[in-house]
Amino acid sequence: MQIVFLFYDGMTALDAIGPHEILCRLPGASVKRVARKAGSIHTDSAGLMVTAEYALSDVSHADVLLIPGAGNATTQQAHPEVLAWVKSIHQTTTWTTSVCTGSLILGAAGLLKNLRATTHWAALERLPTWGAIPVNDRVVEDGKIITAAGVSAGIDMALTLAIRLASPVVAQSLQLGIEYDPNPPFDVGSPKKANPAIVEALRNRLTASFEKSI
Amino acid sequence: MQIVFLFYDGMTALDAIGPHEILCRLPGASVKRVARKAGSIHTDSAGLMVTAEYALSDVSHADVLLIPGAGNATTQQAHPEVLAWVKSIHQTTTWTTSVCTGSLILGAAGLLKNLRATTHWAALERLPTWGAIPVNDRVVEDGKIITAAGVSAGIDMALTLAIRLASPVVAQSLQLGIEYDPNPPFDVGSPKKANPAIVEALRNRLTASFEKSI
Repeated sequence: MQIVFLFYDGMTALDAIGPHEILCRLPGASVKRVARKAGSIHTDSAGLMVTAEYALSDVSHADVLLIPGAGNATTQQAHPEVLAWVKSIHQTTTWTTSVCTGSLILGAAGLLKNLRATTHWAALERLPTWGAIPVNDRVVEDGKIITAAGVSAGIDMALTLAIRLASPVVAQSLQLGIEYDPNPPFDVGSPKKANPAIVEALRNRLTASFEKSI
Repeated sequence: MQIVFLFYDGMTALDAIGPHEILCRLPGASVKRVARKAGSIHTDSAGLMVTAEYALSDVSHADVLLIPGAGNATTQQAHPEVLAWVKSIHQTTTWTTSVCTGSLILGAAGLLKNLRATTHWAALERLPTWGAIPVNDRVVEDGKIITAAGVSAGIDMALTLAIRLASPVVAQSLQLGIEYDPNPPFDVGSPKKANPAIVEALRNRLTASFEKSI
């Protein structure tokens, strides 16, 4: 089972590493990290670097494709080479997935037309640009495309995928293995639950950042 | 505010990257990733590589030190150089922290004597080896040492730290920014909640793995 992560400069590290920690431990999983050029990738997480061992041209098939998001102007939505690769890999997948604004890359590749999809809450209104129907859920499935909401939602998506790719027992064991029994100090992780002033301040900041990337 | 992550071969990627995604976005934070030798670090997450820009000898102070855990034999508990560095940095910190079995490194450095601490649920009984008092909580604070339970607990710990290092409003904004409104498909993330057969199978597998690292 070939699980392929698209890496790119400017990606948000946790978007990829959250689901990576789960999916890479699936029985029979073989994981590839792929970027336009193989080598060091600068995430938008304080310059943290991760490595992509493969270039796009090295990978022509995936059972699962996962595309992380990014908060700034360096997303890959404008790279024809990346979009063509995403489109072509999608033809070979069982599941094509994204986390956070990674769904905007799927959209730019033309894969979300008339499909229900999600993204980071502050970017939801951008989905119709690509013909997608925005859905304000944490994990959204339409056909073989699964999109997750912002950053940490990739962990929930990966567990959902683990059920499909393996079994509920395997998914539960993976969840227990990473002791995913969440207990944040506040219950403010969605705009519905957070203080409206915090939501608006963050929306304005993130919207300005996303603007640069479209 | 200098936030220092210890990286090492064999570390579990999400142990570090979960809290990293939050702490690196704290106002005024300057993040350093440090390893015995600067360069590529092979995590135990399907060979995913991350980069440590600094060697131990480059860093002599931290406001926050964070030590991730590892599932296998390559933890740093036996490296006198690492343990001496951890001990010395601890003298300079406001907070010394660990995720998952990272607390066993704190223990091996002699920093947990008679302190309450936690670790991955399957490694809790190892804490007394280092004179620590094991506590089965998700985030445990004793003096300036904060230890988190397995892997994903680092995210909750980082939000707790964000309250202390900045403010509840900043912590809430960071939580909303990563849309941390967890909703896993099952509620089985702790041994108390999971199917006992799954707990025992995983405990046996992890115990065998941890054995190698002590």
